[in-house]
Amino acid sequence: MTAHAHPIASTASTTMLPQPYLLFLGDVTEAGFAKTAFGLRDWAADSCVGEYALPGATVSTGLVQLTPAQAAERGARSMLIGVANQGGIIPQGWRASLIEALNAGLDLVSGMHARLGEIPGLADEAARLGRQLIDVRVPPATLPIATGRKRVGKRLLTVGTDCALGKKYTALAIAGALSERGLANNFRATGQTGIMIAGGGIPMDAVVADFEAGAAEMLSPDADPDHWDIIEGQGSLFHPAYAGVSLGLLHGSQPDVFIVCHEPGRTTVLGAPGYDLPSIEEVIAATVMLGRRTNPDIRCGGISYNTSGLDADEADRLMAEDGERLGLPVADPIRGGPAFDKLVANCLA
Amino acid sequence: MTAHAHPIASTASTTMLPQPYLLFLGDVTEAGFAKTAFGLRDWAADSCVGEYALPGATVSTGLVQLTPAQAAERGARSMLIGVANQGGIIPQGWRASLIEALNAGLDLVSGMHARLGEIPGLADEAARLGRQLIDVRVPPATLPIATGRKRVGKRLLTVGTDCALGKKYTALAIAGALSERGLANNFRATGQTGIMIAGGGIPMDAVVADFEAGAAEMLSPDADPDHWDIIEGQGSLFHPAYAGVSLGLLHGSQPDVFIVCHEPGRTTVLGAPGYDLPSIEEVIAATVMLGRRTNPDIRCGGISYNTSGLDADEADRLMAEDGERLGLPVADPIRGGPAFDKLVANCLA
Repeated sequence: MTAHAHPIASTASTTMLPQPYLLFLGDVTEAGFAKTAFGLRDWAADSCVGEYALPGATVSTGLVQLTPAQAAERGARSMLIGVANQGGIIPQGWRASLIEALNAGLDLVSGMHARLGEIPGLADEAARLGRQLIDVRVPPATLPIATGRKRVGKRLLTVGTDCALGKKYTALAIAGALSERGLANNFRATGQTGIMIAGGGIPMDAVVADFEAGAAEMLSPDADPDHWDIIEGQGSLFHPAYAGVSLGLLHGSQPDVFIVCHEPGRTTVLGAPGYDLPSIEEVIAATVMLGRRTNPDIRCGGISYNTSGLDADEADRLMAEDGERLGLPVADPIRGGPAFDKLVANCLA
Repeated sequence: MTAHAHPIASTASTTMLPQPYLLFLGDVTEAGFAKTAFGLRDWAADSCVGEYALPGATVSTGLVQLTPAQAAERGARSMLIGVANQGGIIPQGWRASLIEALNAGLDLVSGMHARLGEIPGLADEAARLGRQLIDVRVPPATLPIATGRKRVGKRLLTVGTDCALGKKYTALAIAGALSERGLANNFRATGQTGIMIAGGGIPMDAVVADFEAGAAEMLSPDADPDHWDIIEGQGSLFHPAYAGVSLGLLHGSQPDVFIVCHEPGRTTVLGAPGYDLPSIEEVIAATVMLGRRTNPDIRCGGISYNTSGLDADEADRLMAEDGERLGLPVADPIRGGPAFDKLVANCLA
């Protein structure tokens, strides 16, 4: 994964996070646990003033090391927990650093399963100092029931053959490409890391089912006719656990265009033993059939491959072949190049 | 709607409600607001010892009038709020009666939007007396993520061309018909009235989206190979607000057989102006396409019509015609008769 630094416009009228951030790394020793911090460095560099690691940490984002007080001096408004650990709990050893940040005038932002308010004493300390504890996994308290009313503006949704294969990165890359072309757009975040990057959004998997499509309608409100909302997809219509999330997001998003995200070589569904991955053709057909309900003009703009497991030649050959077969542009947004330009052009066509 | 009194087996390993009930009618003056009480009288008569109405009430279920103390003497274990009012709030004037019930040794059961614990003083009084306040709209605190693993036993799900057209009543009628034939079965409730009737279940529309299919898996666990779970459907795959709920329920239920519920004459979707009702054929095709993912053998067992707006001759003619066209049995379970027997037989075939 190479670094990207194009600006991602800040988004939704819902949660607005206090940016820029100081990235908190705790005492992390495995890069895999610092995925959130790396995502922010790669996609929201302008919103990160530096990193704060505890003694013992061996992983770094490469950003400047700052204490909370130094970060506050440089304009930071919050310290963001950029690291996960086994079980998603917040270790006792981090507590002093979190309180140090509150005392330095920073709010705290977390995407962990455990809530910040569950850390003993933290809520009292935040209240005393007038600081916020923000859990991005918590959806807005008041969400509407969807109406199905067609909204003004253009919308693109990333969908997938499965979970966790590049829907967020694809949406970010498309939003970046539109910005480079001078086209008005917003990246609309639907998961915790996306929300941290965008500075706002709705964690769609945490919304009560009755309000799922309504939350998606709220996430991409009426806009100028030429404005694009680039919406981060969730789950998959073919995932036995998460298809309901994907369908609510599809209906509420009313996309004009969708991109199917896929990881070549993946053959079984994540977390669902015995479930074969659907073909790209099946995903296109199901997305058109169901998406037509709220936007009769829905169409597939192309395919995004996550080819991180292949070398450049293999990737290029595979994408050319599959593009030929499908009659649609296939590109890896992380590799970019002319194939990706074609994908963007076809989405805008 | 005629009264039915066949036994509905008590269900899910999840919420178990304290039955039998005393039905609380408050000071209701419009029969429409007492829908819950009528549903319980019609479908769970054995679980209702009587009704308790306040001075001013003009609506009755026809059950014997009892005070909470008299009901407790006759074995009642809870008082159930069988009446709704505009806005779903619990009027101040009911408070004394609710406390009277707690003092008589009854738990309280409510399906209203407002929680029982929000009524000033009620939670303290219940705690003092060792009684429970049970809000059936609140799903279990711990729900699993769906695995998609195929479970043993047979399952039937009612689906619909829209909301609110007979999915609960159809499931109850099918469960009753199976019981009459001596076939082991459980009615599996997914909405508040159904849960009160069954004495257990999961309010599927109140579940967090990520756990929707997992909740449906939990609702109809492994059973004997010949056992039928008859699962109450929710929403519609074609409803722009609720399709995600319906898909999660479909995937998690893994039905072998589904029945499409429809109200002849309804042409637009409830609460979604501008949305035409899908045809029955479209609902069958979408349900098979999506349901196949977790049960490749899924099939349509027939169609349930809500013909309450037609006279008997019109209803019979219409159901015969449409059955011919669709090549499937069409029946109104409330009218019963040979058409309904055919529908049941085709589901079991």
